[in-house]
Amino acid sequence: MSMTANSAVIALTKDLISRASVTPEDAGCQQLMAQRLAAVGFDIEVMHFEDTLNMWARRGSGKPLFCFAGHTDVVPTGPLEQWHTPPFEPTIIGDTLYGRGAADMKGSLAAMVVATERFLQRFPTPKFDLAYLITSDEEGPFINGTKRVIETLEARNEKINWCIVGEPSSSQKAGDVVKNGRRGSLTGHLTVKGIQGHVAYPQLADNPVHKAAAALAELAAEQWDNGNAYFPATSFQIANIHAGTGASNVIPGELSVMFNFRYSTQSTAEQLQQRVIALLDKHGLNYTLDWTLNGLPFLTDSGSLVAATVKAIYQVQGFETRLETSGGTSDGRFIAPTGAQVVELGPCNATIHKINECVSVTDLEQLVKMYEAILEQLELSL
Amino acid sequence: MSMTANSAVIALTKDLISRASVTPEDAGCQQLMAQRLAAVGFDIEVMHFEDTLNMWARRGSGKPLFCFAGHTDVVPTGPLEQWHTPPFEPTIIGDTLYGRGAADMKGSLAAMVVATERFLQRFPTPKFDLAYLITSDEEGPFINGTKRVIETLEARNEKINWCIVGEPSSSQKAGDVVKNGRRGSLTGHLTVKGIQGHVAYPQLADNPVHKAAAALAELAAEQWDNGNAYFPATSFQIANIHAGTGASNVIPGELSVMFNFRYSTQSTAEQLQQRVIALLDKHGLNYTLDWTLNGLPFLTDSGSLVAATVKAIYQVQGFETRLETSGGTSDGRFIAPTGAQVVELGPCNATIHKINECVSVTDLEQLVKMYEAILEQLELSL
Repeated sequence: MSMTANSAVIALTKDLISRASVTPEDAGCQQLMAQRLAAVGFDIEVMHFEDTLNMWARRGSGKPLFCFAGHTDVVPTGPLEQWHTPPFEPTIIGDTLYGRGAADMKGSLAAMVVATERFLQRFPTPKFDLAYLITSDEEGPFINGTKRVIETLEARNEKINWCIVGEPSSSQKAGDVVKNGRRGSLTGHLTVKGIQGHVAYPQLADNPVHKAAAALAELAAEQWDNGNAYFPATSFQIANIHAGTGASNVIPGELSVMFNFRYSTQSTAEQLQQRVIALLDKHGLNYTLDWTLNGLPFLTDSGSLVAATVKAIYQVQGFETRLETSGGTSDGRFIAPTGAQVVELGPCNATIHKINECVSVTDLEQLVKMYEAILEQLELSL
Repeated sequence: MSMTANSAVIALTKDLISRASVTPEDAGCQQLMAQRLAAVGFDIEVMHFEDTLNMWARRGSGKPLFCFAGHTDVVPTGPLEQWHTPPFEPTIIGDTLYGRGAADMKGSLAAMVVATERFLQRFPTPKFDLAYLITSDEEGPFINGTKRVIETLEARNEKINWCIVGEPSSSQKAGDVVKNGRRGSLTGHLTVKGIQGHVAYPQLADNPVHKAAAALAELAAEQWDNGNAYFPATSFQIANIHAGTGASNVIPGELSVMFNFRYSTQSTAEQLQQRVIALLDKHGLNYTLDWTLNGLPFLTDSGSLVAATVKAIYQVQGFETRLETSGGTSDGRFIAPTGAQVVELGPCNATIHKINECVSVTDLEQLVKMYEAILEQLELSL
């Protein structure tokens, strides 16, 4: 394993992990990538929006355009004493590389760079352009990251045709699962109004918790849709609920509820909003309701990118990958609406955001080969 | 009005208000009362429990025993700048005496003392004993106040037969309402357990808010009893409800609910507990449930004390009082279980616990006469 542990992708991954880039910090990661990419013909464009550092690197000025997308920022470490090895000191034990960001997603970033270098050695003048869209704010509020880079590209009519997002999509082995879409995410901020009072005088008060309980039960039991071939059914979850002063003798004047939909392409945000409103109105509630649309659902169900990805994974790993749309949102939601084909492929996600985050050394090596094979498949398809 | 404003009851009320006795402080109020009572033959027993000062003053060693009960502590002032007059500087404007505690219940304490002095002038050797049970912790946690004094009296088999609590019972005019009982108060602390998780993976989590919503709706809609001739129906109120981390993408692992019953003598605490548990179990919830029994319901529906009170109020005010059991709990809940007849009679409660608390000077003068007339009625009844 010692040979593998010193390979190009592992060395670069370790270099990236050792830069403590907790959102929105980049800590020099993009510069490290930029040096490598510039050396193989990429033009580097730094897009610094507020506290967020973004990099748009492009090689060529033609079309079609293939893009690797990802983020250099990582989530906070959590309690340091619970880590077996220091989170920003990459450590290999057996076949496992430990460190914050190892799986989400500095390993993917390194694999992209090494795969690009190898591909360009074999195809110095490919029939398509290559680009990197890298941000330091994917784990945070995602306001000044991929969203604004895409807005900038759209404004100058620069279009991505194919995009691989390096999110850790895999389950047991690198490549066993590819995300070819994501559900939409819609958050509702509900405030049910009542009249505060003393519990000894309920006739002078109006308890918003009592009025809302039946409506919330009905929302929780509702079947919003049945999903489809690509998406599971839309799900509704109450994430937060709060009312009361803390005292046992005060009827609260207000109930606040925050709920979230993860929704399939069988429903639209507007439809879900209308159905919630109709249900609340049916229960006669006095309320205010604000919405945050965190991401539209997207789906890349066919086309040359999905075909290239499926074939490349089979070539490298010898198994058929599974196309899924499950799981959380990703920056793919900002890229797909431009018309790009978007696929997410990265290492296993079992340890992401957790103490002792880690990645399989073998998986990263295989990931380099898969990324390279995808580029090759696209080259051959043109 | 100037003559009234300098009367014995007003002078003593002002003296008490000027002592800033916010719970659990007594600030010398009991000592002031003790001097007056000792002068007319009372033995003073100070019962200092933890942070709470209590006074047990008794005149005579026979039976039956009549007791005035009350508290010297007051609730905090709230924002001083909203008071038109300084809360601890008693101020008379027209017929109104302003100050924290004027109505709850330093006016009553002063009226008790003056009424006792006048009664003893006319009946120097009454056929019954007299006592005062005064605490400095009625507005606070009521742990070291009346409850412990009663425990002490019970331990030495000292029994109160009749008790007038000076709580401000009146609505429009002193004496228009007398409380001859109070509802019980039972608080439930419910924790519904689920499994925390990411909203994108609801199949791996178990949302306790969803599971509990229908049960809470049913609890809120339940008719617990229909009350009776003396008590309104038992009421259930959810006072607090909390779940969630604040994030919109996390399914909470736990829901906490605090609810409170104000219950009539048609239900027992045990019955209500069993019904809540049966309902929660029917909904298949995984929960823990802790109870706090804040006070048992009590009722003094007939007997010499109620008769004397009704007659005395009619003599002084010329109207029939209304016997009620509505409103919050009082220290009467600790006294009634010993077998004592308990009635609450005091001034109007419209301004208690509020900014610019005040009492009618006329009402306090009349209250002295009512208290004195009650003592006289009891004397004549023996």
